[in-house]
Amino acid sequence: MDIESYWIDKIKTTHIGDDGAVINKWVYAMDAFWEDTHFKKGWMSIEQIAYKAFIVNLSDMVAMNATAKYMLITVAFPKDIKKKKLDRLSSKLNALAKEYNIEIIGGDTIGSDKLGITITMIGTTKTPLKRDNLKSGDIVAYTGTLGTVKRDLDRLFSGERIEDSSKFYKPELRIDFIKAVTPWLSAGMDISDGLYCDTNKMLKCNNLFMQELKVIPKEIGESGEEYEMLIAFNPKHLNRVKRIAKLTQTPLTIFGKATDKRQDFYPCGSQHF
Amino acid sequence: MDIESYWIDKIKTTHIGDDGAVINKWVYAMDAFWEDTHFKKGWMSIEQIAYKAFIVNLSDMVAMNATAKYMLITVAFPKDIKKKKLDRLSSKLNALAKEYNIEIIGGDTIGSDKLGITITMIGTTKTPLKRDNLKSGDIVAYTGTLGTVKRDLDRLFSGERIEDSSKFYKPELRIDFIKAVTPWLSAGMDISDGLYCDTNKMLKCNNLFMQELKVIPKEIGESGEEYEMLIAFNPKHLNRVKRIAKLTQTPLTIFGKATDKRQDFYPCGSQHF
Repeated sequence: MDIESYWIDKIKTTHIGDDGAVINKWVYAMDAFWEDTHFKKGWMSIEQIAYKAFIVNLSDMVAMNATAKYMLITVAFPKDIKKKKLDRLSSKLNALAKEYNIEIIGGDTIGSDKLGITITMIGTTKTPLKRDNLKSGDIVAYTGTLGTVKRDLDRLFSGERIEDSSKFYKPELRIDFIKAVTPWLSAGMDISDGLYCDTNKMLKCNNLFMQELKVIPKEIGESGEEYEMLIAFNPKHLNRVKRIAKLTQTPLTIFGKATDKRQDFYPCGSQHF
Repeated sequence: MDIESYWIDKIKTTHIGDDGAVINKWVYAMDAFWEDTHFKKGWMSIEQIAYKAFIVNLSDMVAMNATAKYMLITVAFPKDIKKKKLDRLSSKLNALAKEYNIEIIGGDTIGSDKLGITITMIGTTKTPLKRDNLKSGDIVAYTGTLGTVKRDLDRLFSGERIEDSSKFYKPELRIDFIKAVTPWLSAGMDISDGLYCDTNKMLKCNNLFMQELKVIPKEIGESGEEYEMLIAFNPKHLNRVKRIAKLTQTPLTIFGKATDKRQDFYPCGSQHF
């Protein structure tokens, strides 16, 4: 068990498990984006760091079918950081808050060698999308195309540059699709640790297994930080789900069917470096 | 202007200013407790670090007259941290959550050279205690005794040990006093940056000054991280406030009177190291 799973296991909570905690129509999520945990110096501009820190939190809201309303931001930066850099960081965060109609309501600052942003995001939902309602027989699918983030991360690690349009910098959230499709889904979550790991998580918390309908190669299954959506639904909703995917221009790949017959899980190591 | 104030100034929010943000009877606060920002290696046991990270957040709730209900916790620790240390950290946080009837609903982990805990605390209040209702003529007072934290911090910096009972390790929150006295207060906040700085903050956000009724020496005025309460109230409530202080065994020191007549503010540097 990796150290993060060990920690989560030790903390007593009834809510950890979903992308966010749901309490009376409110959804809470807290995610950090931190130098040397999620990115290395030189990989990203300060604006790209701000964007990614924001979007991984927004992804939790989308994955829970919630609309983000408020956020608290704690930023770690060196004491000798240039004011111009702070201006760029705050401008980007302010612009994102404005664009998504989210109010920044608090936070903190830390003196640190490493740059890091921790955000708590708070949203509302009438119909939360959870991951524990998966039923045997449900179709399992993912949105978009997977694999480019792993490819781009490999490139960054080997010192190459990647395109500004890379999904490592700019994940594509499926806001409209999830809003429209949630009533027909039995389970959903974002793909942050990779399709293999995240599918396993969804199956395990429902005590189910999966019959593979499409072979998922390693370069797709092990690509983390995709922030596409993993969804599951009763086969009777297939046409409706497909129609909503088409209307919202969301590529959808069906790759499995949940089953209570024991099967091997996907191989799943720790995806963080 | 120090770098933290510069940052806060740049982030667009209508809520930063109080110890927490109030939205529809809910109060939100986020505070970090981080190695080399708030403590140095060797100063504290892992339990003391957990306690302090928790209590500085709880202090924000108390200062807003809110009852904490939920929290999200992000922890930074080295990848090679011993599981036993993680067990001690999680045990302490779980025990504190239980003791104060707070549910841990989420969080994140970060790989880091430094140990750090960032908490978002969420509480409820029917009568939030804000800092922007101070009126000219109001009496300004603080709870408890101030000064020992600065003394103990100075000792820690010079390599000495301090008592386990030090208020640097164990701030004394004024939960019962604030709950009972809030209806009679015009303003209140916790003393985290020191009495000088925090009094100035309260005065400035109300465009008021202070007539000093009692001289506050430097060793008291510049002692930060006290987490005692700074309060203000109309003189007509003096006896009632004094009675509640007595009932809840809360030492109370009246040291000033708010005025609209221009006076010099206290000297106030940055209190964080």
